[in-house]
Amino acid sequence: MTISARRDRLRRKLADSGLDAVLVSDLVNVRYLSGFTGSNAALLILADQDTPVLATDGRYRTQAATQSPDAEVVIERACGPRLVARAVDAGVRSLGFESHVVTVDAFAKLTEAAGEGCRLMRAAGLVEQLREVKDAGEIALLRLACEAADAALTDLIDQGGLRAGRTEKAVRNQLEALMLEHGADGASFETIVATGTNSAIPHHRPTDAVLAAGDFVKIDFGALVAGYHSDMTRTFALAPVADWQREVYALVADAQRAGREALAPGAALKDVDAASRQVIADAGFAENFGHGLGHGVGLQIHEAPGINAAAAGTLLAGSAVTVEPGVYLPDRGGVRIEDTLVVAEDAPELLTGFSKDLVIL
Amino acid sequence: MTISARRDRLRRKLADSGLDAVLVSDLVNVRYLSGFTGSNAALLILADQDTPVLATDGRYRTQAATQSPDAEVVIERACGPRLVARAVDAGVRSLGFESHVVTVDAFAKLTEAAGEGCRLMRAAGLVEQLREVKDAGEIALLRLACEAADAALTDLIDQGGLRAGRTEKAVRNQLEALMLEHGADGASFETIVATGTNSAIPHHRPTDAVLAAGDFVKIDFGALVAGYHSDMTRTFALAPVADWQREVYALVADAQRAGREALAPGAALKDVDAASRQVIADAGFAENFGHGLGHGVGLQIHEAPGINAAAAGTLLAGSAVTVEPGVYLPDRGGVRIEDTLVVAEDAPELLTGFSKDLVIL
Repeated sequence: MTISARRDRLRRKLADSGLDAVLVSDLVNVRYLSGFTGSNAALLILADQDTPVLATDGRYRTQAATQSPDAEVVIERACGPRLVARAVDAGVRSLGFESHVVTVDAFAKLTEAAGEGCRLMRAAGLVEQLREVKDAGEIALLRLACEAADAALTDLIDQGGLRAGRTEKAVRNQLEALMLEHGADGASFETIVATGTNSAIPHHRPTDAVLAAGDFVKIDFGALVAGYHSDMTRTFALAPVADWQREVYALVADAQRAGREALAPGAALKDVDAASRQVIADAGFAENFGHGLGHGVGLQIHEAPGINAAAAGTLLAGSAVTVEPGVYLPDRGGVRIEDTLVVAEDAPELLTGFSKDLVIL
Repeated sequence: MTISARRDRLRRKLADSGLDAVLVSDLVNVRYLSGFTGSNAALLILADQDTPVLATDGRYRTQAATQSPDAEVVIERACGPRLVARAVDAGVRSLGFESHVVTVDAFAKLTEAAGEGCRLMRAAGLVEQLREVKDAGEIALLRLACEAADAALTDLIDQGGLRAGRTEKAVRNQLEALMLEHGADGASFETIVATGTNSAIPHHRPTDAVLAAGDFVKIDFGALVAGYHSDMTRTFALAPVADWQREVYALVADAQRAGREALAPGAALKDVDAASRQVIADAGFAENFGHGLGHGVGLQIHEAPGINAAAAGTLLAGSAVTVEPGVYLPDRGGVRIEDTLVVAEDAPELLTGFSKDLVIL
């Protein structure tokens, strides 16, 4: 599916919503609908016109022409007001705007530009809904991102990067460098390396703490490729491994498998969460799994859908989501196992291929 | 100056503005005023009370207690509305909010929480104004960030990292890994490595383009240390160097020196820009310097003040700013030289120590 097909889907939604046009202010949404990646931009999509109108400032004149060759480009620092004026010129009477993104101050300027004849209508989440279902081009990029992360983690292990005596930060540095070597543009979020008791902290930041014999080492990380984010967690153990560690690991692996097996188009999001959570609760560790099961991933590291006990709605075919249960035992250690998968009619496609067996180093 | 002293400064501003309290929604501002770095938070500062009220969700209970030991911590996912209710309970009638940050949808929820008795007043930029002048703790962290970047660039050169045959991306990867080795938490923004004709693009992203004899190699990068951003640009040359390259380099170096020498408390921002720009214009290259001279840097890579031809206002003692003129010759190459400095009564303190002489490799 091309980028223009994404705009076609949006324009059909506009017709359904009674909007003549929508002003897209969120930069990730602008990128999704136009390919443009500059840091100051807005996009106007008119219901009755194929050609989108992209506004950006003078720094990006060349980049806009290159990245969005089929757009009408307007050069102006105040992108939003300029496009509202452009919409008024085009006869737009009902203009959607991203009320979940536009600030109170920015809205005042849009209102001024709209004047009397054009009404600004809240259209929060319109583009994010489209983004929940990935097209073939997006899935291809997610595959590349996940492959870069897989390859980096494989190299890290092969190079002996996980061993007693190293610091969490040293491991993080090596892993991030390896992702770059494997074609990533960067890390897709702040890499988590958590050793020993730190592994019991769900979102630990790497410190100078030293890996030691008997530690769990939990690594949650991802690669960024052409704007798409991979997300994977693996937990390793440094020998010797205690019985409680084997048990907790096996439990989380079981819960993670149950979560993956529950992924299907039409499945209620809270049921997917429950399928995995129940395994942990049955073993008596409900209190030790305090976060949601997963989330959508794509142009952002966290996007729709959220998979948790409070989520409404159902899974859609073509969604890319994480499945990441964990069990965290304060002052002892914790295990999380996380994959990124694409929901599909038959079985989900697993993008993060690194082994989920307990690797003892 | 401690963090509580920052809040004292803010509370004095509240009194001046006729506000009983301010709701801080911007996460960088929350960090500045409380030390808390979680991804979901808001902070309530009451004019007549020393203790700030920090709201965040359950994931951050421990972190909030650790990072903000002197705050009253409220655990709630919907941080903003919860703190508005807290303000109402405290008898606040006039509550400032960050209208440049709060979205239209979020504002609707704040308004609902405020009810009849409490008025929400726009207070855009109140905290950013404070942040423009750095305290001793902030300057110490900026020094560390700039030193990490200096050390990484020195290592890159010493290790032969800049040589014909390497790609821009390979240079970027090595430089970013070196910053991590020197204690950075990461890159402070997307590293620019631009070789040959790419150096004529002010904000070029690293590609697989190969460094070649006779190229300018422009490197714009920074280290992130404890939330503080360094920012430095150096332009190198791979032998042999043509006369036009020496001339352009000397011109930009002269312009950069003029910009640095114009930094003084009370200097008009546009005059600082002009001091540097005039040197380039006098040489006939006005058209080849299309961006502002510099910007403030601190908890964000771009913050107040902007130093450019359109800027109002004057420089303040204690501001950390960049000075970064450039001359870009399309299809030939470009030079930018950038330092980060702290404005001071006598002479500015130079934080980026790497040599600005033309280094030929």
